[in-house]
Amino acid sequence: MAENKIIESMLRRKSIRKYNDRIPTEQEITDIVRAGQQAPFAAQLCSVMLSRKQGHTPFKAPLLFTICIDAYKLEAVMAQRGWSMKANNLFMFFFGLQDAMLVAENMVNAAESLDMGSCFIGMSPNRIKVTVDNYKLPKRVFPAVQLTVGFPDENPPPRPRYPIDFFLFEDTYPELNDEAVVQAMKVMDDGYLAQDYYRRANFMVKLEDDRKETFDFDSYGWTEHMGRKWGQWFSDMDEMLEVMRYCGFAIDEKNRSGQQDEK
Amino acid sequence: MAENKIIESMLRRKSIRKYNDRIPTEQEITDIVRAGQQAPFAAQLCSVMLSRKQGHTPFKAPLLFTICIDAYKLEAVMAQRGWSMKANNLFMFFFGLQDAMLVAENMVNAAESLDMGSCFIGMSPNRIKVTVDNYKLPKRVFPAVQLTVGFPDENPPPRPRYPIDFFLFEDTYPELNDEAVVQAMKVMDDGYLAQDYYRRANFMVKLEDDRKETFDFDSYGWTEHMGRKWGQWFSDMDEMLEVMRYCGFAIDEKNRSGQQDEK
Repeated sequence: MAENKIIESMLRRKSIRKYNDRIPTEQEITDIVRAGQQAPFAAQLCSVMLSRKQGHTPFKAPLLFTICIDAYKLEAVMAQRGWSMKANNLFMFFFGLQDAMLVAENMVNAAESLDMGSCFIGMSPNRIKVTVDNYKLPKRVFPAVQLTVGFPDENPPPRPRYPIDFFLFEDTYPELNDEAVVQAMKVMDDGYLAQDYYRRANFMVKLEDDRKETFDFDSYGWTEHMGRKWGQWFSDMDEMLEVMRYCGFAIDEKNRSGQQDEK
Repeated sequence: MAENKIIESMLRRKSIRKYNDRIPTEQEITDIVRAGQQAPFAAQLCSVMLSRKQGHTPFKAPLLFTICIDAYKLEAVMAQRGWSMKANNLFMFFFGLQDAMLVAENMVNAAESLDMGSCFIGMSPNRIKVTVDNYKLPKRVFPAVQLTVGFPDENPPPRPRYPIDFFLFEDTYPELNDEAVVQAMKVMDDGYLAQDYYRRANFMVKLEDDRKETFDFDSYGWTEHMGRKWGQWFSDMDEMLEVMRYCGFAIDEKNRSGQQDEK
């Protein structure tokens, strides 16, 4: 590949969980957010909340952005023109989450270009609720993901990804036989083990239901980590339905008919 | 702002709907997809489908990418380690859509860096179904968005965005009074009208229910366009629930208990 600073920056990017004390300037914050804002959109269904309480942010990052799905603003705009929202809550959520995540990834890349690092914080239903209360988010605003940003105090390598032939398919989604799956797993596990990722993080997901531990940091790789997370956690859909209702995006049958009354 | 090619590229970016005949090389395609793949992720819950049937793609683009939520691959990986998916379908969909959209936005930026342009195609429930059938996507793969890519044969200006003080909020989500809303609307409407956006596209959303047309291309701006779309369209949540079920992500009460049987 010819020299391409933009693609190289994306290929080099990794999550940063240690930050030094340098505080980003107002201009740097504006640059990051404006780059986010210019991402393509369905209806600008996004707002960004900022916290600068360094002692209280994850990883003590100087900046914590919360990227939100925002239908509240759109509805305020529509009301000025005599329109009220007809689109259903699930569709709003689907398109709003798209808008928000495009913004978020531009912010990641803008931060990199300013020599900063970043790390996404995934949102559990409980964390969503706390965030709504903390920022006093109105109904129809849903905090989708958080992003810590600051100047890095660590320099880990970029993390492995599946082989591209396990990710990009032309014309027809192929039969993924055991061999292809095992090969992709090996790339991921060998890669994470070579970086000593979980030992450095000192973290293995605990086994539930009396399952016996047979792994240590010499054998615990990415695929075992994924299996334990997704094979043990997040089983309760009602929690997620409830937090969507809490944010004014009810989609469960009992409640969604009230979608217009909740605002 | 000091010269920053990455942020400048994001600020300059606009959707391209006319492409010339130059065909991107295999290397260029790989560069775009690899940049997408390196986006941060929850669990690499994404696959990308590619079409190169230029006569049959939207805007006759040389490349059409379909960025999919993919839980099928993760489940294949988990099965090799003796795990089965416990996470509920709504949560999988929530995190999968995040992974997919981060990938998508990196692909947008990578294409820009290679002097190409791109345009997102939003997915209606019907388009999702057709796409699933067309690419023979297995259950647990959900086509989230499509992206046309190619070398541009037009050079429109970047499109307006809300004022940043209508987008970025610190510590507390503010009361948005009429004045703030009207000011943000003016920025958007004046901006789109100055670019003659809808006249050039020759498109106004039709009014339903015997509403009388009072706009023309001198007055029809972005906020009226948004009001008509979101105030008239996408009302039927069942269509979306059904297509999620069709893709193996049932979340409606009647069907979601069968989530594990559908694979």
